[in-house]
Amino acid sequence: MIVYGRNPVREALRGPREVTRIWATEHARREPWLAPVPVRRAAPAEIEMRSGSEGHQGVCAQVSEFRYAEPDALLASPSALLVVLDQVQDPQNLGAICRSAECAGAAGVVIPERRAAEVTPAVCKASAGAVEHLPVARVRNIADFLIAVKRAGGWCYGAERAGQTPYDAVNFAEKVALVFGSEGRGLRPRVAAACDELICIPLHGRIESLSVGAAAAVLLFAAAAQRRRVGVPLPSDVQG
Amino acid sequence: MIVYGRNPVREALRGPREVTRIWATEHARREPWLAPVPVRRAAPAEIEMRSGSEGHQGVCAQVSEFRYAEPDALLASPSALLVVLDQVQDPQNLGAICRSAECAGAAGVVIPERRAAEVTPAVCKASAGAVEHLPVARVRNIADFLIAVKRAGGWCYGAERAGQTPYDAVNFAEKVALVFGSEGRGLRPRVAAACDELICIPLHGRIESLSVGAAAAVLLFAAAAQRRRVGVPLPSDVQG
Repeated sequence: MIVYGRNPVREALRGPREVTRIWATEHARREPWLAPVPVRRAAPAEIEMRSGSEGHQGVCAQVSEFRYAEPDALLASPSALLVVLDQVQDPQNLGAICRSAECAGAAGVVIPERRAAEVTPAVCKASAGAVEHLPVARVRNIADFLIAVKRAGGWCYGAERAGQTPYDAVNFAEKVALVFGSEGRGLRPRVAAACDELICIPLHGRIESLSVGAAAAVLLFAAAAQRRRVGVPLPSDVQG
Repeated sequence: MIVYGRNPVREALRGPREVTRIWATEHARREPWLAPVPVRRAAPAEIEMRSGSEGHQGVCAQVSEFRYAEPDALLASPSALLVVLDQVQDPQNLGAICRSAECAGAAGVVIPERRAAEVTPAVCKASAGAVEHLPVARVRNIADFLIAVKRAGGWCYGAERAGQTPYDAVNFAEKVALVFGSEGRGLRPRVAAACDELICIPLHGRIESLSVGAAAAVLLFAAAAQRRRVGVPLPSDVQG
């Protein structure tokens, strides 16, 4: 796979994937974090051609395929904070949510095997390279996975405009899955039914909904702040 | 100006702008909120041509120019919550931040006259039409505007990775401006110096920063939640 853009290439070098080759323009080669790595000089047009995108910022790298995590492994920590995405289609949204999840100390992101964005180079770019450090797991069926979360002692909170419980009244200081639906249509009924509770972000304007990316950022950081206050170790602390 | 996409056209019809003409495909004409409005039927290719974008979702409208608000008017409410953007260049980011700001009950968004994204059709689309209900003001100089905020009794909080104060230790329940810098480079020194305090969002992963859109969502909704808890009326309540 080719990843492109400064942050994605930099994080690939810091993460578990094998980086077999890097191409950079004369200008981009001067980035200090590229200094210790052998880099092939290339014209912007060649990097654009290899990247298949204009968003390469003068650098791209050949890396080993993205390795998805095992869903069960994400449930191991007693205070795992998970993000579960039901049919989020837009790579920009998937990438943005992965970036927020990694920054909030989430244990991972769970996506369906079908009818959803997967971890493509565009997602690596939109995540600013966060996917290199964030477990992402694919499951056949989201509702079944939520049942597994509950069996493992976790709580599943579905984000829904019409949810009864405001998010700032929720206990996030335990094993928690935050569940988000697709842009526009929200959670599917079977997924909503598999949640312990449907929670909402109170809105104070005239438009009807936040973007799924903004909603995820709000809930993830509300959870992280609450965990700091009550002294729950973040999954990143537990895993060392 | 042509606005395009379902939410942008719908919100333009509900907002203060004059909508002089609407074009929609046979399919998009069935939207219930379009029913009372005279609509010209058009092929997708015509709507794409008029919109100048593929993201039209089968509908576009000719509307009067966007009217920017007076900066001073945004400071009138004693508990105004403002977003101030220092050189945010990307229309997607400006639109996303406007959407979050409108949903959080902010009194408005302030942008510089130069070297920044302005309210274009792409911003209307990225905001899901939120800009139709949200005052957006342009100022010549961001640092000078922050001085005016302080003179009007407000507090200016600059969002900075290296900020000393975690955002969840901040009092947002008064007249407040949240100040964000450009993607990548952050606040310019003169803007940072004009803030009362630089605040941070504690991160728990390996990557170094949230996107400006996610950071804005986190701070705006932290402010809205705190205001609800302590009973500060939201600007939208004050304005009726």
